[in-house]
Amino acid sequence: MNDRLAARRRAVASATAEAGAGALLVTDPRNIAYLTGFRGSGGAVLVEDDGEAVLCTDSRYELQVVEQAPDVGHVISRDYVAGVLGRRRGPADAPLAVEADDLTLSAASALRGVLEQVGAAGTQVVETSGLVEQVRRAKDPVEIGLIERACRVVDESWNHLLAHGLLAENRSEREVAADLEHAMRRAGSDGVAFDTIVASGPNGAHPHHVPGDRLLAAGDLVVVDFGATVSGYASDCTRTVALGGAADRLLDAYEVVRRAQLAGVAAVRAGLACSELDAVSRGIIADAGFDGYFGHSLGHGVGLDVHEAPAVSSRSASTLSDGDVITIEPGIYLPGLGGIRIEDTVAVTGGGGRSLTTTSTALSVL
Amino acid sequence: MNDRLAARRRAVASATAEAGAGALLVTDPRNIAYLTGFRGSGGAVLVEDDGEAVLCTDSRYELQVVEQAPDVGHVISRDYVAGVLGRRRGPADAPLAVEADDLTLSAASALRGVLEQVGAAGTQVVETSGLVEQVRRAKDPVEIGLIERACRVVDESWNHLLAHGLLAENRSEREVAADLEHAMRRAGSDGVAFDTIVASGPNGAHPHHVPGDRLLAAGDLVVVDFGATVSGYASDCTRTVALGGAADRLLDAYEVVRRAQLAGVAAVRAGLACSELDAVSRGIIADAGFDGYFGHSLGHGVGLDVHEAPAVSSRSASTLSDGDVITIEPGIYLPGLGGIRIEDTVAVTGGGGRSLTTTSTALSVL
Repeated sequence: MNDRLAARRRAVASATAEAGAGALLVTDPRNIAYLTGFRGSGGAVLVEDDGEAVLCTDSRYELQVVEQAPDVGHVISRDYVAGVLGRRRGPADAPLAVEADDLTLSAASALRGVLEQVGAAGTQVVETSGLVEQVRRAKDPVEIGLIERACRVVDESWNHLLAHGLLAENRSEREVAADLEHAMRRAGSDGVAFDTIVASGPNGAHPHHVPGDRLLAAGDLVVVDFGATVSGYASDCTRTVALGGAADRLLDAYEVVRRAQLAGVAAVRAGLACSELDAVSRGIIADAGFDGYFGHSLGHGVGLDVHEAPAVSSRSASTLSDGDVITIEPGIYLPGLGGIRIEDTVAVTGGGGRSLTTTSTALSVL
Repeated sequence: MNDRLAARRRAVASATAEAGAGALLVTDPRNIAYLTGFRGSGGAVLVEDDGEAVLCTDSRYELQVVEQAPDVGHVISRDYVAGVLGRRRGPADAPLAVEADDLTLSAASALRGVLEQVGAAGTQVVETSGLVEQVRRAKDPVEIGLIERACRVVDESWNHLLAHGLLAENRSEREVAADLEHAMRRAGSDGVAFDTIVASGPNGAHPHHVPGDRLLAAGDLVVVDFGATVSGYASDCTRTVALGGAADRLLDAYEVVRRAQLAGVAAVRAGLACSELDAVSRGIIADAGFDGYFGHSLGHGVGLDVHEAPAVSSRSASTLSDGDVITIEPGIYLPGLGGIRIEDTVAVTGGGGRSLTTTSTALSVL
């Protein structure tokens, strides 16, 4: 028996009981992985009030499910929800919690049909939000270790890119992204945590630019945002470099972002409101005269999802606590000119913050 | 004005009217891309009864939306649904169609709140399924051209892998996947269409194996399932090779899968029921004594999604027609021993089938 997984399921069962339900139907794939170890792309799990669980997936995963999730009951069927509800042990008509952030209207209709089939048409369906995600927020040391490995991959790959001159004039954004992803794979990544961003020159003003055929040119700032995954856990890192001498306004903005980012990382501590953390970096950017050029939030939680709880934004109601892993990623985006973003993945441990991505953020002029 | 996009929106507006609604709220990102050209990861679109549309996304995409979707109205807000509904031109209380396969229970609750805010609390919400997807099913020549380019990437990358001896004994599944993805990127892919599968030896019995640290060994069959994306459009291809002499039962199974796959591709024609197409390949596998070792469907549509309409399975109610692009991918999976899958992406054009992936499916013994 995997005690860590069993403890997670018991925590979720408690949260489910608090939500007024007797069992939770889990349909979010990351939550399924978190609670059972199963990492296939299709399935459903029912967590009963004692933390026992049954998992249904289809025949593609018949062997994988036995290897990855030996501690829970298995059903092989294409009708995932019918598969798990057919094995419900608790009172068939006790309220059933569902994941309202994942379950679509179509799936909810299908669920109603299944409840009728199993003679539980009167079951109250309780829409819940974030029950598993809130348990996921507090990472245990094994999880932080996996995120740290995903950060090592990112560090090694970045160093490889610089050491081999792969970020250079006349190379396309697309080529740079390809080389970086290849380096991550070779350094042990299971895949990319998200689509790599390489945004050069004026493209840097788009925070989510898709790498294209533009050739890197002298005077560019180049924003590179990339992440690896190790055993399902993500890392997230952004570095911005200069190719030769960039415009003064960009260089000024770089130093402002760097100060804002360092101050954000230094401010991380258990007990700090995420909105206050956002304000630390945002205030530095505004005070430097770049108010209005930092349109996104300061950061987000990182774990099985590259974006998860807690949000680190001006509107966040969360407070940092030990076990959180978050990004700190301020930026300045100057339309037509370029952009800067600097991002680390930071763990909250022992009351303070520890950056898991460790490459230098001083401006590299290549 | 982009006439192709406008025609798509008018077709969707007609389908929306048939569903009894005056406008469609589009939340699925691929559908948003299909109807407007916008390829950001967050947003919502409202398509009115005349095919006019308004798109809401957040400030991250403020510049991108102008470049990619110049023909539709724009709103910049984090509250995508409120953003588009605030701009609704049609009668505010006419029935509103939503995408029930995409909209979550949480989003549906939020929508109710927005309708109240804009003074349209009485609006009937019509749950629809596949309105845009059915229009997407029939690819126009430009779309087929993009899928064909994504197939060229796959062909070139596969040839590169074989020509450079990258599929070889003592290399790990992970390394092979990394090299293949790198080759796809360099050949012009925007990214991978899905996580690359490299399943060697006994791992080949898992249709959806995740590449790991296992080293390829003499006697292995190796299943490689991979796809590229070009301008959002996917390709999907699987090849299986042998490293030296494999067990006779695997070699026998290989030839059965190859016959089943060639027969499937040859059978493709407009007017054929997808369930009959599935039966062509499945029958060959069953007749050869491998009944029970082919647990997944024969194929699926390919386009902006790597899995889209039509399903090519025994349970499919669809009939092939010109403009469909589908996969034909029979397999045999022998637990403990290994697996075989051979897959092409095939376009239905001029009444017949044309394979867009073109590398040889004769067994390569490396």
